[in-house]
Amino acid sequence: MSHVYFFGEGRAEGTELGKKILGGKGANLAEMARLGIPVPPGLIITTDACKYYSANGRLPDGMMEDVHKKMKELNQAAGKTFADASNPLLVSVRSGAPVSMPGMMDTILNLGLNPSTVDGLIKQTSNPRFVNDSYRRFIQMFSDVVLGVEHHDFEVALEAAKKQKGVKDDTGLDADDLKKLIEEYKKIVRKDAGIDFPDDPYVQLEKAIEAVFKSWDNDRAKFYRKLNGIPDDLGTAINVQAMVFGNMGEDSGTGVAFTRDPSTGERKFYGEFLMNAQGEDVVAGIRTPHPIKDLQEIMPEAYSKLFEIQDRLEKHFKDMQDIEFTIQQKKLYLLQTRSGKRTGFAALRIAVEMVDEGLIDKKTALMRVDPETVPSLLAPIFHQEQKKKAVEGGRLLTKGLNAGPGAASAALVLSSQLAQELALKGQKTILVRFETSPEDIIGMEASEGILTARGGMTSHAAVVARGMNKPCVVGCSALQIDIKAKTMTVKKSDGSVVTLAEGDDISIDGSTGEVLKGHLDTQPSEIDQALHGENGDVSRLAEDFIKLLSWADEVRRLRVRANADIPRDAKTARMYGAEGIGLCRTEHMFFGGERILAMREMILAETAVEREKALAKILPYQREDFEGLFQSMNGLPVTIRLLDPPLHEFLPHTFKEDEDLAKSLGISPEKIRNRVQSLHEMNPMLGHRGCRLGITYPEITRMQVRAIFEAACNIKKKGIDVKPEVMVPLVGHEKELKFQKEIIDSVAKEVMTEKGIEIAYLAGTMIEVPRAAIRAAQIAEYAQFFSFGTNDLTQMTLAFSRDDAGSFLGDYVDRGIYERSPFVTIDQDGVGDLIKIAIERGKQIRPNIKLGVCGEHGGDSASIHFFNKIGLDYVSCSPFRVAVARLAAAQAALSQS
Amino acid sequence: MSHVYFFGEGRAEGTELGKKILGGKGANLAEMARLGIPVPPGLIITTDACKYYSANGRLPDGMMEDVHKKMKELNQAAGKTFADASNPLLVSVRSGAPVSMPGMMDTILNLGLNPSTVDGLIKQTSNPRFVNDSYRRFIQMFSDVVLGVEHHDFEVALEAAKKQKGVKDDTGLDADDLKKLIEEYKKIVRKDAGIDFPDDPYVQLEKAIEAVFKSWDNDRAKFYRKLNGIPDDLGTAINVQAMVFGNMGEDSGTGVAFTRDPSTGERKFYGEFLMNAQGEDVVAGIRTPHPIKDLQEIMPEAYSKLFEIQDRLEKHFKDMQDIEFTIQQKKLYLLQTRSGKRTGFAALRIAVEMVDEGLIDKKTALMRVDPETVPSLLAPIFHQEQKKKAVEGGRLLTKGLNAGPGAASAALVLSSQLAQELALKGQKTILVRFETSPEDIIGMEASEGILTARGGMTSHAAVVARGMNKPCVVGCSALQIDIKAKTMTVKKSDGSVVTLAEGDDISIDGSTGEVLKGHLDTQPSEIDQALHGENGDVSRLAEDFIKLLSWADEVRRLRVRANADIPRDAKTARMYGAEGIGLCRTEHMFFGGERILAMREMILAETAVEREKALAKILPYQREDFEGLFQSMNGLPVTIRLLDPPLHEFLPHTFKEDEDLAKSLGISPEKIRNRVQSLHEMNPMLGHRGCRLGITYPEITRMQVRAIFEAACNIKKKGIDVKPEVMVPLVGHEKELKFQKEIIDSVAKEVMTEKGIEIAYLAGTMIEVPRAAIRAAQIAEYAQFFSFGTNDLTQMTLAFSRDDAGSFLGDYVDRGIYERSPFVTIDQDGVGDLIKIAIERGKQIRPNIKLGVCGEHGGDSASIHFFNKIGLDYVSCSPFRVAVARLAAAQAALSQS
Repeated sequence: MSHVYFFGEGRAEGTELGKKILGGKGANLAEMARLGIPVPPGLIITTDACKYYSANGRLPDGMMEDVHKKMKELNQAAGKTFADASNPLLVSVRSGAPVSMPGMMDTILNLGLNPSTVDGLIKQTSNPRFVNDSYRRFIQMFSDVVLGVEHHDFEVALEAAKKQKGVKDDTGLDADDLKKLIEEYKKIVRKDAGIDFPDDPYVQLEKAIEAVFKSWDNDRAKFYRKLNGIPDDLGTAINVQAMVFGNMGEDSGTGVAFTRDPSTGERKFYGEFLMNAQGEDVVAGIRTPHPIKDLQEIMPEAYSKLFEIQDRLEKHFKDMQDIEFTIQQKKLYLLQTRSGKRTGFAALRIAVEMVDEGLIDKKTALMRVDPETVPSLLAPIFHQEQKKKAVEGGRLLTKGLNAGPGAASAALVLSSQLAQELALKGQKTILVRFETSPEDIIGMEASEGILTARGGMTSHAAVVARGMNKPCVVGCSALQIDIKAKTMTVKKSDGSVVTLAEGDDISIDGSTGEVLKGHLDTQPSEIDQALHGENGDVSRLAEDFIKLLSWADEVRRLRVRANADIPRDAKTARMYGAEGIGLCRTEHMFFGGERILAMREMILAETAVEREKALAKILPYQREDFEGLFQSMNGLPVTIRLLDPPLHEFLPHTFKEDEDLAKSLGISPEKIRNRVQSLHEMNPMLGHRGCRLGITYPEITRMQVRAIFEAACNIKKKGIDVKPEVMVPLVGHEKELKFQKEIIDSVAKEVMTEKGIEIAYLAGTMIEVPRAAIRAAQIAEYAQFFSFGTNDLTQMTLAFSRDDAGSFLGDYVDRGIYERSPFVTIDQDGVGDLIKIAIERGKQIRPNIKLGVCGEHGGDSASIHFFNKIGLDYVSCSPFRVAVARLAAAQAALSQS
Repeated sequence: MSHVYFFGEGRAEGTELGKKILGGKGANLAEMARLGIPVPPGLIITTDACKYYSANGRLPDGMMEDVHKKMKELNQAAGKTFADASNPLLVSVRSGAPVSMPGMMDTILNLGLNPSTVDGLIKQTSNPRFVNDSYRRFIQMFSDVVLGVEHHDFEVALEAAKKQKGVKDDTGLDADDLKKLIEEYKKIVRKDAGIDFPDDPYVQLEKAIEAVFKSWDNDRAKFYRKLNGIPDDLGTAINVQAMVFGNMGEDSGTGVAFTRDPSTGERKFYGEFLMNAQGEDVVAGIRTPHPIKDLQEIMPEAYSKLFEIQDRLEKHFKDMQDIEFTIQQKKLYLLQTRSGKRTGFAALRIAVEMVDEGLIDKKTALMRVDPETVPSLLAPIFHQEQKKKAVEGGRLLTKGLNAGPGAASAALVLSSQLAQELALKGQKTILVRFETSPEDIIGMEASEGILTARGGMTSHAAVVARGMNKPCVVGCSALQIDIKAKTMTVKKSDGSVVTLAEGDDISIDGSTGEVLKGHLDTQPSEIDQALHGENGDVSRLAEDFIKLLSWADEVRRLRVRANADIPRDAKTARMYGAEGIGLCRTEHMFFGGERILAMREMILAETAVEREKALAKILPYQREDFEGLFQSMNGLPVTIRLLDPPLHEFLPHTFKEDEDLAKSLGISPEKIRNRVQSLHEMNPMLGHRGCRLGITYPEITRMQVRAIFEAACNIKKKGIDVKPEVMVPLVGHEKELKFQKEIIDSVAKEVMTEKGIEIAYLAGTMIEVPRAAIRAAQIAEYAQFFSFGTNDLTQMTLAFSRDDAGSFLGDYVDRGIYERSPFVTIDQDGVGDLIKIAIERGKQIRPNIKLGVCGEHGGDSASIHFFNKIGLDYVSCSPFRVAVARLAAAQAALSQS
């Protein structure tokens, strides 16, 4: 199979190979060429070639020969000839991976220039300044990317040239100045790289191709892939494309546009452009560009053609498109089209509206919204009244571009490093930078929000922040940063100047672009307000949200429950669509005034009789809590886990508390301290906890089961249906469950007889100890359901204490041992395989056993795909992530069907 | 199938059913009857009936009808008739489980007596005293066992009768006194049990059968089974046998004998008897019996017949026999024969001598020695010179029977409870009792040795102590115990009296029967001395030991290695026959003066460069240690585990130590405390340890690997072969091993090149994290061997922290959740199954992967059977248990072939 394919002139080769081989950019360029849309002709070198290069450190045999051959087709299509002095063709060499990785890999423009093609081009264009400037830029870019020459050295030479001439901007240098500068550049190359800058365009081309392939494995790109869960073995394709120039004078320009607003999703043509500029100028955010509507005035014809093309592209690809275009001396070229990155808000709106427009079906809409963006839709916004007052009180500093929606209020920091350091200490920050670069990614990840002085909606900061679901304001030209003094200064619209120091609070509203001095409170999102019924009118956003989630409910197979311990959380969970409680941690009910005292009395009891007395005091509290839960879940299943944590967690931790407790209970403080001492454990995770407590103190189990069934009977008496599911924690041996189940069944029967009410209930167990997974068949004899406790199962299967793993997990992720924390996304190969063993064995004995998961992985979309695949019946997660889970479950069902 | 079988008169039914159905005692009685040996005729009720009774709480339908039928055969054989007034047959009802459980279950003698059979018997025997005494004993025994009447109440009535009569002994009461006493006894029964004592012999029989079946599940029996690893579902058979009487006057007697000395194994007829006594009197140890040779004088005919029979029985059963006999009015009856319990010393000697005698083959001999007794053979004995001096110095208190060999010196305690309590605190004791009863088993288990005032070589104390491999001296009649004053008083042979208080040290020599005041040092056993070559003459014991172990080596498949960290341990291991080192824990080399300082310097280093500087100081120490190990293992494989424990284990633990260390290193104590703080972990078991250290600090791995290979090269230069196996601990993910293996291979190559020497080595990993077992296929890509670290694998698979499990493991074993601690014997169902998964998956990728185990289970005989079955190549255990493992491996090979 060939590694090189041609596109241009209304035709394209290899379009059947798709994005995986041609890369996203290449496939779309080929498709556009095929559709007759004006694109500069070019070649695509496949991802297979990249993989070969990664594995062998050299290009595939014969590949460059194919490139040479195809360059002839390219010459013909472009009407110019590569490496020809009289009518030279220049090309760009760009990466184009199957998945977009903006700004992560290297690109080289103007390739093909050398002293003779420069001369030829000057003759052709009669624009020596433009040609020399292009050559200068090319030398700098090529040397940086291919030869590893420091960018900085060229900057110094450029500054020196400007100083000598006495000008401030690059534009102040004329053709001759640039020619001299080019000689300086070549000296720098000779000195730094030890070779002459290559003149042969084919040598330039081969070196550039190798450099782009190499850049697939640079640290920035690897980090980005890790962050975004992109596999390392995809490889990138390369597009070698005829250059067109947006910087050929005032009848040329370049821009980036979206077929809908990527921030809000509104259906309007949206974009930015710069006249007399190269494409990189827009993306890099160095000059602040014009909004796309201005193009209509400047170049009505080009605009109307562009408008027609963008509409056609969206209809053709049936998704919002992100397009790059260049106008070279009034002629429009499309350089790229791809599905546009968008905020969660925009994704939601676009998906729902496209269904309304008949462009896509509901299933496609469901696949278009990343479940991991849902939390940002639900994230707090500023309290509108408070913000209004702050603005009126003069706290509005400036307004920038609303590049990433959401509100954030925190201490400002001026370096990514400080943002990281403070994040490690648990402190929240807003990262304020002049502009961001790929080196800032880690700092952006660590901060609550991003604010930059430069750049547009498609600048690095804006694109990355939206990808991370972080509030972001860019292009605040009133902002000045003094890195040395560690201050940020803003010239307000009234002309006054405000200076803030690193550490001072600022607030940014990524939905409006406002930047305010000091702290602002946040409040629930529109969706939250709508779900709470707090807002009279339901906003369009909330409407779309409810609609999309209802579609999700139509297609998903996995049920979604919530982990909730108190009636308030249960209500929140139902609001987000929970279909039951998958985990109620009863111990959370034991804290607080009277309760903790009775609990401590129980722990300090010396005999079973004393213990039962203390337990009798706890019983009414437990019953009351369970009544609240049953009532708020109104007939949905409620899984109640019996006492789990080690008893020492309930005892006092200070000398003073010991004294107080001793007084309350009328015993000596020594006795308390002795008990604390005797309960101390070396490895509490593997200690006396879970059902081991119920084995040692069956009276605790009896009390809890009595409270559950008394509550259930009381609520059922009111005409409300109840479905309790009693769950035994930390079972490792079938006899543990047998013993606890005997208590559950006998106490349940006892209470039901007393109350004269029948309650249909289930008794089951968590599978969170590796042995339980291995012995699932025997355990299934006694368990009506398994709920995989993936938090503890991960800790024990991997021997990773979640409390302690921080000291090495970073090294593990850095070295690629784990792609991401196994506490966030389930370790499918290890823990996941153990779960599969448990399911297989459990079903051998009880084919219809109910299967769920109640670890935090239950709310992680990648993990949910796995849980759907292996046949679980439900996931249970925090109320806040129930909507994530509903959407992820729908996507899992669609992608696995 | 019938539940009832007859034996007697030279014939027996159902002998093909074997011990499992007939019980050990029943099968042997039947076999003796078949051989024509005089046994009182009887019936056997099968273990199946017992199992039915356990499950259903009643006897199988129709079983009692079968008993009634078979009783007719019994009447005929005995020449008497059960329940017949004129010629009444009396029977004993005894338990007889497939595995001997001496004294654990209930027995009833003289069953069939009632007022009319008493009269008939008196007419027949003209011995009203004997008959009435038998009736009295029967009422007491039946009431205790069947009706649950307190033993004590009868004792009070007996004491009152003696007081009234003015006599001290039972024998002072005549027939009329006993008749009155019988009426008293019947009143007690009526009062306590609320019923009249049953007169109908068939009612007596049925009730007695039920009671014996019930006693299978009494607490004593259960505890004994747990202690001895006997399954709870075996059930017991019952022997209903015609009574013969050893208490029918001075021409009657009863005794217990062994065909060889059960203590030393010496080939001589050995036993004890009492004239005019029932069998229970000998076993209970209430009267001190005569040695068997005295019978030759008293009753030469009976003795010579007995001698002939015992010889025949040993030859028939081809094992040392434990026989019970009764002489009724000069006629000899054998009541029981079974393989005799014996000490480890005796087992060894008998097994080897029987091979020499041509009685059994080597394989049978190997199966005859319990590997778990081997440690007692190797246990220390008193220092002979010191003991001699102590005796000369008047410290010899008394001499009793040498009932359980071995030496012990510790604080004396007078109650089992105190022995238990002190054992829990880690204090050693010697349990001193007037006599022991089944209630003392737990206390005996808790103590170092047992000393009793009463009882013979076959008393409860003696039998149980031998079973537990504990030093035991019994029958010290000079001993008096004052429970109230908590003292023990001895009347020495010179007439002087010595009183010791609870807590005072005493020393007992279970091989000689000596009891000494105060502490005595112990020294290596004869075998140890022989293996060390310290004793000019090799003792017969050592000779037998070496012979048996050499036979074991001929048949076993499993290799046996030792866990050894220092050259001295390695030498000990080789002495016991280790075939390599399976686990060298390198961290043990880091403690001690200079080394720990360098180690701490390494931990406190802030950069990799500083760390490498400190590691360079440790390197020579490590190299030197490895040289010692390689040298002492002389070409045998040496598995070296890389650093495993968390770093905080090496830092100081006190304020003072911090200060000293700070001074040594020239840094501030705060820095040390901060580092200690930062290294603190919630669950160190699951924290930053094992290969995680080598991932974070690759320089540690590099240093250790360099030390290993420099040492290997240096030793090989001396012409000694070396086989290093480098083992990476705590691997959970294949990439961890890949990363560490790259370092191992590159440093090994580097050192070998430097030294110009080739070393053949292996690199592998421990499988001790559950995930590693699950991912064994992927890990096997990089591992040339797996060594199952069953200690940690048990901790993680079961979620049992060994440090903390003490707080609940007792409850778990008590409730039968685990039969014994999973840290002693491998949990086959859970951990074992995970190991099987690992083997299966590992072999898929690397079929010839070397497999071993290096947890403590590697030295446990039950676990070794499992390891042999699942196909491991070797086990590795502490040097002290290498001989245990060699023998257990042989037995596993024999029993599984």
